[in-house]
Amino acid sequence: MLHPADTSHDSYPSRIEPTSRLIERREPVVYGHNPGPLSDAGLQSFSRDGFLQMRGILDPSEIEAVHNELSEMVARPEVRQDERTIIEPASNEVRSMFQVHETSRIISRLAADKRIVDVARQILGSYVYIHQSRVNFKPAFEGKDFSWHSDFETWHTEDGMPAMRAVSFSISLTENYTYNGPLLLIPGSHRIYVTCVGETPEGNYRSSLQFQKLGVPEREHLRTLYKRAGGRIEVCTGEPGEVTVFDCNTMHASPSNISPVPRTNIFLVFNSVENTPVEPFAAPKRRPDYLASRDYNPVG
Amino acid sequence: MLHPADTSHDSYPSRIEPTSRLIERREPVVYGHNPGPLSDAGLQSFSRDGFLQMRGILDPSEIEAVHNELSEMVARPEVRQDERTIIEPASNEVRSMFQVHETSRIISRLAADKRIVDVARQILGSYVYIHQSRVNFKPAFEGKDFSWHSDFETWHTEDGMPAMRAVSFSISLTENYTYNGPLLLIPGSHRIYVTCVGETPEGNYRSSLQFQKLGVPEREHLRTLYKRAGGRIEVCTGEPGEVTVFDCNTMHASPSNISPVPRTNIFLVFNSVENTPVEPFAAPKRRPDYLASRDYNPVG
Repeated sequence: MLHPADTSHDSYPSRIEPTSRLIERREPVVYGHNPGPLSDAGLQSFSRDGFLQMRGILDPSEIEAVHNELSEMVARPEVRQDERTIIEPASNEVRSMFQVHETSRIISRLAADKRIVDVARQILGSYVYIHQSRVNFKPAFEGKDFSWHSDFETWHTEDGMPAMRAVSFSISLTENYTYNGPLLLIPGSHRIYVTCVGETPEGNYRSSLQFQKLGVPEREHLRTLYKRAGGRIEVCTGEPGEVTVFDCNTMHASPSNISPVPRTNIFLVFNSVENTPVEPFAAPKRRPDYLASRDYNPVG
Repeated sequence: MLHPADTSHDSYPSRIEPTSRLIERREPVVYGHNPGPLSDAGLQSFSRDGFLQMRGILDPSEIEAVHNELSEMVARPEVRQDERTIIEPASNEVRSMFQVHETSRIISRLAADKRIVDVARQILGSYVYIHQSRVNFKPAFEGKDFSWHSDFETWHTEDGMPAMRAVSFSISLTENYTYNGPLLLIPGSHRIYVTCVGETPEGNYRSSLQFQKLGVPEREHLRTLYKRAGGRIEVCTGEPGEVTVFDCNTMHASPSNISPVPRTNIFLVFNSVENTPVEPFAAPKRRPDYLASRDYNPVG
């Protein structure tokens, strides 16, 4: 199923060249005009901004059911010891759990739910499969920040994802306030690819999930993207059950959470079945399956 | 000029007792009905919330003049070496400069400006002097957070400020967005004093200005204050030139700044001339003059 790596025709060379640069995106953002839950206006705004917020996707009883299952999961010693669980070194608390569409019954149903999958299909113009899934816990008072990055940069260099034809869904399980470490997005940044410098060492993912050192864009480029956006950053606030859909190349970050309110969200990445990974473009070998799935069966 | 310390009648014992507790504030928030720039509604909202935002206090030319003088100051080697300047260890950048009402010509004028001082007098019902002044720089991408604290807790325990009769003015020199590390305030928290545990070592201020370890309220108490506020945190966003006035005991914090936009503000603390410090209530000796002024001459 793996295509042969063709790094001589790498359209998005990152972690390869001695200096970083900006590359214009080659692919469309919305693949064709497909029927689906999003209106024309919704698709246009996604295409323009690189993200979209959908209100009230999950109802309170569904959110409660997810919370209950997750609480039960993080309490299990075998889950804490699982390599797919990331523990915060300082506090010893669970920060992320990966591959939750396989380990959680409710999230596996959600990852195949028409309210979600049909949006991914509509944007990507094809059947889709799950490239990655996870739950992020950002605890009150001590939730750490994630610095600016494009997910596609990592998925391309480390996972061999050839083109920009994937979308992420961030499903809020708690209130997102401006002050509890919300998702920040730079509008329009999905149209520019920022190459990064530095060679990927083997097993980079082990440390990068706690603190990202590679795939970190230079500040000068972030300032450029911010200026191009008219000095605007989208702060994704909202109720539990809201969903933020964003393009795989949208530059995003999230600040630390010093507030008394935790923040938890489910993160589902859908990739087009026509965009399945090849060998990594700039890493010694592919990351494990729980970070970059090799199960390309369409969902939904 | 120093009153004798009378710790046997310490109304706000902190860093003394083995466990922390909440104490109801004894003093008023607004001292009488005094003429001044604030309306009755403004005074009432300050009294209720413990803070107030004043729009458009400085005009753009004044802000530019302050920026120019500050740029010139931080570039001077003797300023960087001055003990009143706090350097961020990781980046080697200036994070704060203290006693700026004496070292900056423009800030010294501002600290005596009727637009500011008359508000302090109106709230505190007396002549006022400057207990502390500083400029805070929160650089883009790496501005550090300040965790939750009441300034009065430190001013009482370490500086010997007897009662809650001081107000702080945070004067914005840059845009305050929700995402560049703005001031966060818990409405109504000024009415409750949260005692802290831990004994103050001598010279505590040297490390506490970079990372506060003492005078840090317990999380359980912060949750209580947040709940009492109806689950609301005030995020002080606004234009350059806006001023946030807040009570000395209002619980506040500010998150890290991972955005591409720096945040700079001037911080002026006015204390009532009827509330001049005695010996510290819970520290071996008083902090230096540049942190807790001994010049009690009224300003304005």
